[in-house]
Amino acid sequence: MAQTSQPQRNTYFPGHQDVKHHQLRTAENCAAYLLPALKEKAASSPNLTLLDVGAGPGTITASLAKYMPNGHVTATDISDKVLQSAAAHAEQVGVNNITFQTGSVYSLPFPDDSFDVVHVHQVLCYLDSPVDAVKELLRVAKPTGSVIGICETDMRSWSFWPLLPALQRFHQIQMETHEANGGTNVAGPQLISWALKAGVRREQVRMTQGSWCYSERAEKEVWGASWASRARTGEVGKKALSMGLATKDELEEMAKAWEAWAVAEDGCFALLNGEILIQR
Amino acid sequence: MAQTSQPQRNTYFPGHQDVKHHQLRTAENCAAYLLPALKEKAASSPNLTLLDVGAGPGTITASLAKYMPNGHVTATDISDKVLQSAAAHAEQVGVNNITFQTGSVYSLPFPDDSFDVVHVHQVLCYLDSPVDAVKELLRVAKPTGSVIGICETDMRSWSFWPLLPALQRFHQIQMETHEANGGTNVAGPQLISWALKAGVRREQVRMTQGSWCYSERAEKEVWGASWASRARTGEVGKKALSMGLATKDELEEMAKAWEAWAVAEDGCFALLNGEILIQR
Repeated sequence: MAQTSQPQRNTYFPGHQDVKHHQLRTAENCAAYLLPALKEKAASSPNLTLLDVGAGPGTITASLAKYMPNGHVTATDISDKVLQSAAAHAEQVGVNNITFQTGSVYSLPFPDDSFDVVHVHQVLCYLDSPVDAVKELLRVAKPTGSVIGICETDMRSWSFWPLLPALQRFHQIQMETHEANGGTNVAGPQLISWALKAGVRREQVRMTQGSWCYSERAEKEVWGASWASRARTGEVGKKALSMGLATKDELEEMAKAWEAWAVAEDGCFALLNGEILIQR
Repeated sequence: MAQTSQPQRNTYFPGHQDVKHHQLRTAENCAAYLLPALKEKAASSPNLTLLDVGAGPGTITASLAKYMPNGHVTATDISDKVLQSAAAHAEQVGVNNITFQTGSVYSLPFPDDSFDVVHVHQVLCYLDSPVDAVKELLRVAKPTGSVIGICETDMRSWSFWPLLPALQRFHQIQMETHEANGGTNVAGPQLISWALKAGVRREQVRMTQGSWCYSERAEKEVWGASWASRARTGEVGKKALSMGLATKDELEEMAKAWEAWAVAEDGCFALLNGEILIQR
């Protein structure tokens, strides 16, 4: 995992220390829209190559790799540290067809026309130049026969119950700090637009919309604890303090609201994820 | 189709004259969460009975009926006129196991313990007493072995591109008129809460979240034309005028924005639908 040298542009901001909920993520609940194409390709070309960009802790990566046991997966992320945890996760779940390599989505450390499948999950929403990133995905994907799957949320779409005022305030702070760090809250609905701006023809793109839903106690406790931690000690809380959006006490109140939400009998949370498949 | 006599409480407000998009609706794209349970019940009890409450133009009803060819479906709606169009639709698509009967969700014209399956799609969000409606669904469903499926949107979750200012204003007006007519914009996330208040035990409820996505030209033209018509001549536009939320010219601008959205190469629209299955 060599650290490539890149100019530091804005990138994944929230930090990985508090995101136990990433471990809930699998190919099935995060990349279902990609699976039919992946299965078809894996069946017809056993030496399939897949690049997972912004792999983070690698749970989706390992899950995707299981669909192509004779193929090879490359996982890349800007953070060397998180890729180490992704490698540990792959080993833990017995997946051994993944190579891990640090790199920026703006300048991927791979030659042109390298991969049959390129997968990106919740990465472009953090970037100030998502179109440049899509161009880079197109560069490393094979010019014919490849498929690129991108899934990005609409941060405005958070839909939760009960409507605790401290959670509503936290949602606002999440969006304000996200954009202050150079990301966009309106990523999902822009995916077709970004693809077209990167040079994709309209007929090469299909959009679907996925959703996440947390309504059962165990998953709510993971989701709630992650956000409580982000409010208390994570980058979102720190940024909110530095921007004067909330006091330490108010952030503590928001963290407690997430904990109360997690155990509320009628508590639930959902959001929308825009998804596109670019098929060439 | 006898008209039952009911005290007129608030009910479906937008009118059915402008809603060509209802014709896009099928069991597959509106009630996928219910289909596994429906198929299982249809396989094990051929004389299955299903009640579709607020059936509207009946496209979902007819689509559900195909999953239980040996069973019987009852479709009910507060509007006799729309049920006549639902009956015509069923005939047109060759489905003949549906009975149509006008009735209010607050006082369904059926005895206790009548149905194996009860289905409700986008009805509770229009009501001032959704918990009373859920109690009525529970009354007519069999006390053991039945399943009740309810799908309601979160009106706040509209996620579209491009972010045309006239569309953003229309979204606000849609929400303001919807609540002024006694409905709630936050129906989807409240479904578990409403079920519990109606007496359902928490372990009897499972929530999922569906989404609608319109991104291809043909479906966008249907969706855009429906909303343009609602802005120009429908109940939403009339209510907005009467509340002083917009002028006739502004509503015309919103209608034109919907038409521009429909043909925009990068145009797309999505929303979240909360879904619960109550299994007894």
